[in-house]
Amino acid sequence: MENKSILIENVTILGDEIKKGSVLIENDKIVDITDNINSNDADEVISGDKKVLIPGLVNTHTHLSMTLMRGLADDLALETWLNEHIWPVEANLTGDHCYAGALLGCVEMIKSGTTTFNDMYFFMDYVAKAVKEAGLRCLLSHGMIDLGDEEKRKKEFKESIRIIKKCNDSADGRIQVAFGPHTPYTCSTELLEGVRKEANKYGVKIHIHVSETQNEIQQIVEAHGKRPFEYLEDIGFLGEDIIAAHAVWVSDNEMEIIKSRNVKISHNPASNMKLASGVSPVDKMLKNGICVSLGTDGAASNNNLDMLEEMKTAALLQKVHNLDPTALSAEKVFEMATMGGATALGLEREIGSIEVGRKGDLVLLDMKTPHLTPFRHPISHIVYSANGGDVSTVICNGEIMMRDKELKILNEKEVLNMAEEAANDLISRS
Amino acid sequence: MENKSILIENVTILGDEIKKGSVLIENDKIVDITDNINSNDADEVISGDKKVLIPGLVNTHTHLSMTLMRGLADDLALETWLNEHIWPVEANLTGDHCYAGALLGCVEMIKSGTTTFNDMYFFMDYVAKAVKEAGLRCLLSHGMIDLGDEEKRKKEFKESIRIIKKCNDSADGRIQVAFGPHTPYTCSTELLEGVRKEANKYGVKIHIHVSETQNEIQQIVEAHGKRPFEYLEDIGFLGEDIIAAHAVWVSDNEMEIIKSRNVKISHNPASNMKLASGVSPVDKMLKNGICVSLGTDGAASNNNLDMLEEMKTAALLQKVHNLDPTALSAEKVFEMATMGGATALGLEREIGSIEVGRKGDLVLLDMKTPHLTPFRHPISHIVYSANGGDVSTVICNGEIMMRDKELKILNEKEVLNMAEEAANDLISRS
Repeated sequence: MENKSILIENVTILGDEIKKGSVLIENDKIVDITDNINSNDADEVISGDKKVLIPGLVNTHTHLSMTLMRGLADDLALETWLNEHIWPVEANLTGDHCYAGALLGCVEMIKSGTTTFNDMYFFMDYVAKAVKEAGLRCLLSHGMIDLGDEEKRKKEFKESIRIIKKCNDSADGRIQVAFGPHTPYTCSTELLEGVRKEANKYGVKIHIHVSETQNEIQQIVEAHGKRPFEYLEDIGFLGEDIIAAHAVWVSDNEMEIIKSRNVKISHNPASNMKLASGVSPVDKMLKNGICVSLGTDGAASNNNLDMLEEMKTAALLQKVHNLDPTALSAEKVFEMATMGGATALGLEREIGSIEVGRKGDLVLLDMKTPHLTPFRHPISHIVYSANGGDVSTVICNGEIMMRDKELKILNEKEVLNMAEEAANDLISRS
Repeated sequence: MENKSILIENVTILGDEIKKGSVLIENDKIVDITDNINSNDADEVISGDKKVLIPGLVNTHTHLSMTLMRGLADDLALETWLNEHIWPVEANLTGDHCYAGALLGCVEMIKSGTTTFNDMYFFMDYVAKAVKEAGLRCLLSHGMIDLGDEEKRKKEFKESIRIIKKCNDSADGRIQVAFGPHTPYTCSTELLEGVRKEANKYGVKIHIHVSETQNEIQQIVEAHGKRPFEYLEDIGFLGEDIIAAHAVWVSDNEMEIIKSRNVKISHNPASNMKLASGVSPVDKMLKNGICVSLGTDGAASNNNLDMLEEMKTAALLQKVHNLDPTALSAEKVFEMATMGGATALGLEREIGSIEVGRKGDLVLLDMKTPHLTPFRHPISHIVYSANGGDVSTVICNGEIMMRDKELKILNEKEVLNMAEEAANDLISRS
């Protein structure tokens, strides 16, 4: 393969420190960060004038294909939402729907500055196909539910292992696969123990929802006599390869377990607020040294995948919940959305910061816009004032995915039309 | 004056009901809404294809010139923020700074779909000059503070009455002026009583901050032996012409007072969250029939003026605070940001909805974008998925202020440069 290089010139870089400079990418990696790079050496030169360069954002909890269910049902109790709206529609899902929804989600994420995400859903080989085309980086998992049924359990393992064998480490290493047991209350102990064993065998991660609602806590306490993270610890399920989404209702004892097992938490504030699940003790977990990253959850409960919006929501929610304006600062929430996410996915040496040797996963934000004027602390502007629409150029794995707000890999219009048709088809079957 | 007309053709209209149609504006008013308008009759024709038409949004609590202090100081306790950052900078404010900051705020509001706002700050004739040029609609008030000092009190009345005489009912009626006593704890009883008397005399409204923080409640209880709204009721201050911003800490008795006096509440969720003030009982107030509208507060404590973002924040915050996903639905929060705001400012027969006879204050949102696909319930998409960047065309008082994301009245680049310079000058003096 011929060498290919991109130079981002004279840009404000949000690296270890905030500084002006130029960044050179060769093939998939950052190879130089300096004040003095000759633009003749690069195949592509991108001006960084009036822009800020940040690491590609990492969304650690999504159900990408659920973009097709965006705005389908809002302002409802969780049970009504699931039983009467989401599950009846999901019963009719096909691989083609999931492909179209995932492609739509990829376009949305690219346009709002996300380059890596952690997805759990169904027909994950179709999702992998979409991600391969879109150029993003991800961890995918088939959502496993057995509700204690042995036949269902066998099928779930079969499908999970099929996806691992078919998709793991594909698309130049951009796509990794994990096990995705749904929750401790929809999966039997046998399933969870099996997942731990198979995850060790295949050397893959585990993505699971834990402690999202008070109702879930009650169910687990009734069934197992202890709280969710305590139960998972007891059955030997926990480890540093676990990405636990939500973690809203966490006791002090559970926080110690999470810390000691180095479990990775994905915080999903907009979804937790919209479904009225509760407020995760994020500030306290971070102060306890727990790795907390940020996720949007699916578009049916958010209703977008905008990580810039999610950062603001996360910071604001911690402040008002703790009645402490110093809780979860802009710097900390920005770290959650970059290095925190990278660490959660085991990519802490590959992505999440702007350093020589790391992958070329970079995002340029346009700062010459009214709501980001006057130009001042860039991290404050990014967290508190910006939104996904301020993203101008996105690079993933050294490929330009969007330049000056125009998609370079996918055809936006075609994707929107395909998603619109898939959504209509899906709803018409329900 | 010659007649001037604008036709918005074949658009999804969010009026009393959601329907497809065309809207004709002549001079400053909506004169026809129908399926069948000949485009030859209009001077300007705007296509509504793939767009949704909403009433111009109404932001009922701002300090517009504080855009110059955006991102100046974040993640701090209220006292540190005010004493060490905001007040020292404000001490050096000039009219020119306020003009530049207000113009920046106007551009930001136009670009994010706000056509009417309620502002309290200083050098309000300079703010009026900016608003006159920008083409927006507003209620302006000079922020009055006496801290019990009689000399200061006299000056505040002099300045307030100067602004009323100079600016009230100016710019073709787009600019109205109110009295702006700052708060019950920074204004003496004499000042508040004087404001009530003078407001009656001049027939103008009153804009005040009430019950923003627990600290304020404590101060008022200590000074007057009762809570803020009870104290204001006792001194005969309250009435239907009062717009009270924040109302975070409101007792049941105070809610009855607010209701019986028909006081208008401006809810500012992002600011209340960022400064960790608390959560206003908005859902309960609305269920009690109180008029609650929506405001962004100043850009120093938000840090933007995006009413689309504010609607989502308001809905999500009520849901999680009440642990009830049915609290503050998308429809209700949309009404707060439109008709609620119109009613708060006494413009409920002029703006706030799309009806024949009302002012031509209208906003087009572009729905053909990934995060608003598939096209489904428009109000859900607007509240939960959209942001200010989705606004495409803005009309106020029958004038096109922005068309296809391009400003028509102001020069965006010039305003941004002027604001940047004003902000630098202001900070260099502090």
